[in-house]
Amino acid sequence: MTEVIGLIAAICTTFSFAPQALKVIKTGDTSGLSLAMYVIFTFGVLLWIGYGLMREDAVIVLANVVTFVLAAIILFLKIRNDVLSNRK
Amino acid sequence: MTEVIGLIAAICTTFSFAPQALKVIKTGDTSGLSLAMYVIFTFGVLLWIGYGLMREDAVIVLANVVTFVLAAIILFLKIRNDVLSNRK
Repeated sequence: MTEVIGLIAAICTTFSFAPQALKVIKTGDTSGLSLAMYVIFTFGVLLWIGYGLMREDAVIVLANVVTFVLAAIILFLKIRNDVLSNRK
Repeated sequence: MTEVIGLIAAICTTFSFAPQALKVIKTGDTSGLSLAMYVIFTFGVLLWIGYGLMREDAVIVLANVVTFVLAAIILFLKIRNDVLSNRK
């Protein structure tokens, strides 16, 4: 039971970034997103991948690889749209 | 060493939501944020708190309580600004 709740929790917090990534890809509107959040978050997820590799924990590695891809897409579009064009 | 990396990872992914919450509080601009992301993410964080309580893991509980507060602030403002006013 505990494992099932942990698994659903991991699926939710991992895949929740998919609708945000899709929204940003579709609308191109990144002005409301915090650059600091996505820089710190993406860096943190990279560290989680390193932690998972060192612990040889495949679940931590896999979940964070998925999160990393989604967060990196959002961060890339945020930098391209707002930072490089000096919008915000 | 592994524990230090895990700790820094947890601090990054937990507190990364602080600048996003501050930005939303300051600007009131939630139109670029995905409602689905914050609904799924906040629900997932609640499950993480439940998982931590069942495992009696204080670190998981504490980190996710902080994340829950920050994500719930963003979700509340998203619903108040965009959903209830039919903006997006």
